[in-house]
Amino acid sequence: MAERLSEQEIEARLAGSKWTREGEEIVREYKLEDFASAIAFVNRVAEVAEEANHHPDILVHGWNKVRLSLINHSAGGLTEADFELAGKVDGLT
Amino acid sequence: MAERLSEQEIEARLAGSKWTREGEEIVREYKLEDFASAIAFVNRVAEVAEEANHHPDILVHGWNKVRLSLINHSAGGLTEADFELAGKVDGLT
Repeated sequence: MAERLSEQEIEARLAGSKWTREGEEIVREYKLEDFASAIAFVNRVAEVAEEANHHPDILVHGWNKVRLSLINHSAGGLTEADFELAGKVDGLT
Repeated sequence: MAERLSEQEIEARLAGSKWTREGEEIVREYKLEDFASAIAFVNRVAEVAEEANHHPDILVHGWNKVRLSLINHSAGGLTEADFELAGKVDGLT
């Protein structure tokens, strides 16, 4: 099973990142052109998530915004896999 | 602008429906086979939403669940359009 990162490791990975800590998760909010663009983005994220076999929570809201939340439920916290997926998602925009 | 429904009208439309009231919104939660099925469902909902030009909030969570929330933001509450879209989404499953 993946090992949970320490608070220090999490802070180091968040430094200079566009993701922020929210409770036990890391989140990033995106503003797209419109609803169709938001859904297209969700599909690109889904593809990367399936490849990684790690699935963020995805919220499409306010018709053009997408909020992604990452945590490793089986590890009960944040692991390297969360930051790897965050990095891959960053590569999409 | 669309007219807000009265409490009585909302209750009548929710009776026997799979949608429930949550604050000012109506919500429905779906459990799908897996993440890919959840994303496929989101795409079907998005198509219906675009046709109706009315966009629910969509939350994909726990890798196989989708939660839809409907409200008419410009009317500041629930309107006939919300229940029309709810009915169309019901037709997808």
